[in-house]
Amino acid sequence: MAGSLLTDLYELNMASSYLRRGMNGVATFSLYVRRLPPGRAFLVAAGIDKCLSWLEELRFDEEELEYLAALGFDSTAIEAFRGLRFTGEVWAVPEGRIVFAEEPLAEVSSPIAEAQLAETFLLNQLTFQTAIASKAARCRLAGAGRVELVEFGFRRTQGIEAAMSVARITGLVGFAATSNVEAARRYGLAPAGTMAHSYIEAFPTEREAFRAFASDLPAATTFLVDTYDTLGGVAHAIEVTKELGIASRAAVRLDSGDLVALAYEARRMLDEAGLEDVRIFVSGGLDERDIRRMLGAGAPIDAVGMGTRLGVSADAPYLDSAYKLVDYGGRPVMKLSVGKVTFPGAKQVFRAPGMRDLLGLRDEASPAGTERLLEHVMSAGRRLGPAGSLESSRRCFESDLSALPVSLRDLDAAAPAGPEVSSALRALVEEATATAVRAAGS
Amino acid sequence: MAGSLLTDLYELNMASSYLRRGMNGVATFSLYVRRLPPGRAFLVAAGIDKCLSWLEELRFDEEELEYLAALGFDSTAIEAFRGLRFTGEVWAVPEGRIVFAEEPLAEVSSPIAEAQLAETFLLNQLTFQTAIASKAARCRLAGAGRVELVEFGFRRTQGIEAAMSVARITGLVGFAATSNVEAARRYGLAPAGTMAHSYIEAFPTEREAFRAFASDLPAATTFLVDTYDTLGGVAHAIEVTKELGIASRAAVRLDSGDLVALAYEARRMLDEAGLEDVRIFVSGGLDERDIRRMLGAGAPIDAVGMGTRLGVSADAPYLDSAYKLVDYGGRPVMKLSVGKVTFPGAKQVFRAPGMRDLLGLRDEASPAGTERLLEHVMSAGRRLGPAGSLESSRRCFESDLSALPVSLRDLDAAAPAGPEVSSALRALVEEATATAVRAAGS
Repeated sequence: MAGSLLTDLYELNMASSYLRRGMNGVATFSLYVRRLPPGRAFLVAAGIDKCLSWLEELRFDEEELEYLAALGFDSTAIEAFRGLRFTGEVWAVPEGRIVFAEEPLAEVSSPIAEAQLAETFLLNQLTFQTAIASKAARCRLAGAGRVELVEFGFRRTQGIEAAMSVARITGLVGFAATSNVEAARRYGLAPAGTMAHSYIEAFPTEREAFRAFASDLPAATTFLVDTYDTLGGVAHAIEVTKELGIASRAAVRLDSGDLVALAYEARRMLDEAGLEDVRIFVSGGLDERDIRRMLGAGAPIDAVGMGTRLGVSADAPYLDSAYKLVDYGGRPVMKLSVGKVTFPGAKQVFRAPGMRDLLGLRDEASPAGTERLLEHVMSAGRRLGPAGSLESSRRCFESDLSALPVSLRDLDAAAPAGPEVSSALRALVEEATATAVRAAGS
Repeated sequence: MAGSLLTDLYELNMASSYLRRGMNGVATFSLYVRRLPPGRAFLVAAGIDKCLSWLEELRFDEEELEYLAALGFDSTAIEAFRGLRFTGEVWAVPEGRIVFAEEPLAEVSSPIAEAQLAETFLLNQLTFQTAIASKAARCRLAGAGRVELVEFGFRRTQGIEAAMSVARITGLVGFAATSNVEAARRYGLAPAGTMAHSYIEAFPTEREAFRAFASDLPAATTFLVDTYDTLGGVAHAIEVTKELGIASRAAVRLDSGDLVALAYEARRMLDEAGLEDVRIFVSGGLDERDIRRMLGAGAPIDAVGMGTRLGVSADAPYLDSAYKLVDYGGRPVMKLSVGKVTFPGAKQVFRAPGMRDLLGLRDEASPAGTERLLEHVMSAGRRLGPAGSLESSRRCFESDLSALPVSLRDLDAAAPAGPEVSSALRALVEEATATAVRAAGS
């Protein structure tokens, strides 16, 4: 993923023009989400680490330069690209923190060509990973600590890299395990897996399949019971569990039909057989609303497998993210397009208790009792501190989740209105508007 | 992407059990889409090539085996995994072909442990790439040959790999260009790019920005005109175009507001200035319905940039795909779960003119006047023929697109009802149902 051509052509067009003209003034770009999608009351920041790695490695190799020359970039542009590195500053909200619309997830300050080239990669990673983290956090809220969440999305994520990101992010927000073995290995997550219908069908009878699986995989005995008839499957699972004496580590998995009714009936059958320890696992196209509904109906479920609808954030598969120039060479910048007005200036988010946020300027003093959300994470093109760890992201998330106001915890909560704006930022808006009006007209 | 742990844990659980038991019978798994999502009347098959590469490279290295041992797989399982390769057969619908629900996109026949291990990777790639190809084909239909389509999705796709796949697939279905430079290089696509608002804002005035861009990038002079005021921007673009004499290669890009009204007005202004050759490019959260609406309103647009909503297939970000065991050791297999009944047996799709498809068995003779959709693409674990080329996929798509019945070409067309089923397959369903009932009960 380190390729420096992982960018939109227009970034290279603009960068070449800046470099040719000696336009080396420091630009600040602000990356934020304009509006939250329907059904989202907050975002969970994610993905900054890959961005910093990409920036650290930004340089065009000879093959890339040859390709650019073949596209028509002249020798002046090619020489400029050859020497280009990212030498700038990055501020970012730490991964795992809860943020809202209009609040920068990250800001980049560097000579303008460099910051411009960073746009596509940063937007791609921060948009996607934040979208997934925000969806997964809703699942966590729905589970309310009463069920274990397991990530099952690999087969339907938008590619393999997406599957890896999804597994990592669900681990970040408190999922108990992932089905994705490579992600479990790479990120130190717990892998989890049951069996497929095909396993049952490869044996002459369901009972034989259950017996074989329990013998061969003593550590992972979750019986998938809906291949033929769900309650018949539960009966077979009970029989094999008792026969092999594995109640303490067995579970049944319900994967189709009316999961609430089936969970009640399976629980009753298990309890009557003296198998109170056998757990009930449900799956099958579920999302956070299904979890809420099932728990609301008192369904006796212990764990939920969350696949596709989590893995692509099906109800909101993207965020309305933007990467906007807010300052160039010390001049505050803003855009006046209909419906797309931007706040000028390098920013900071000041958070008071209760997640009452104030959008202000990077250079402002913190109002009393507030913390600053954006941290300085890269200077002169090098990371300040070690690469982000999943553990520190988890701590950020747990801390913010516990501080999330009650009014935002419901799955149907509306997003807060736009952030409060500091008086310094308001003054800058007036100044930048006047400048923009002049730029438009003259 | 070659890692053999890119799979769900349950695949490894099941495979280890099969290998331990010497269950080496040949299994056939069928990968298909159960139901098309709302708003889809057909699918365009895509993604098989990466699957074949992964299967050819399937083998666990020592680090992977060590990880599996650490997870608890015993030495018998580890030794079996060490020797495992994919030695089977794959049939697939060629990339670019149009298919429907219930029709296999691919079938895998091999010793059961191998075919089982293939499930996650194949589902991931075929589901995602087919979803995108199907969305992009709708954009192509909406464009109706009247506008050039340019893929702009990179910044909001679900990861970098997804961006690469999306660019390639849009090239496959006839998009003119992509903004993604690395994808253009890797896949031989035309890269395209304009300028961002930030470029305009980095100059003191819009006019100066336009002049600089046109001088520095003579081959790519598309003026983004909505930074301050769209029609004011058009006026500046006209001025600079005439001043530099670049009418034959200039364009204006409208990116916000009422694009139909603005396109009319921009066209009028350009024509009055004698700039009939200057093209109009539109963008900004557009999908295939927007294209239809704009063209239906007679908007004088020449090209459309399609970003996020194409790049994540926003209205249908996943497909209801399945990978089902349909035969094991010569015994036809089917599942009886509520709402998830499957067709048993290794299959073939027989297509009569007018895309009237018959779902039958692989071993059936072709009914007169039909072609067979599934081709034998891998034997004994090796590709039959060279890796798929984008050019051959394009030809498949163009041929099928021209044959697509009028009734399925409208963006609101309903999907055809389930496929017709051959009498041989119907007979097999009866046989397999009886077997499944026995397996459930005994």
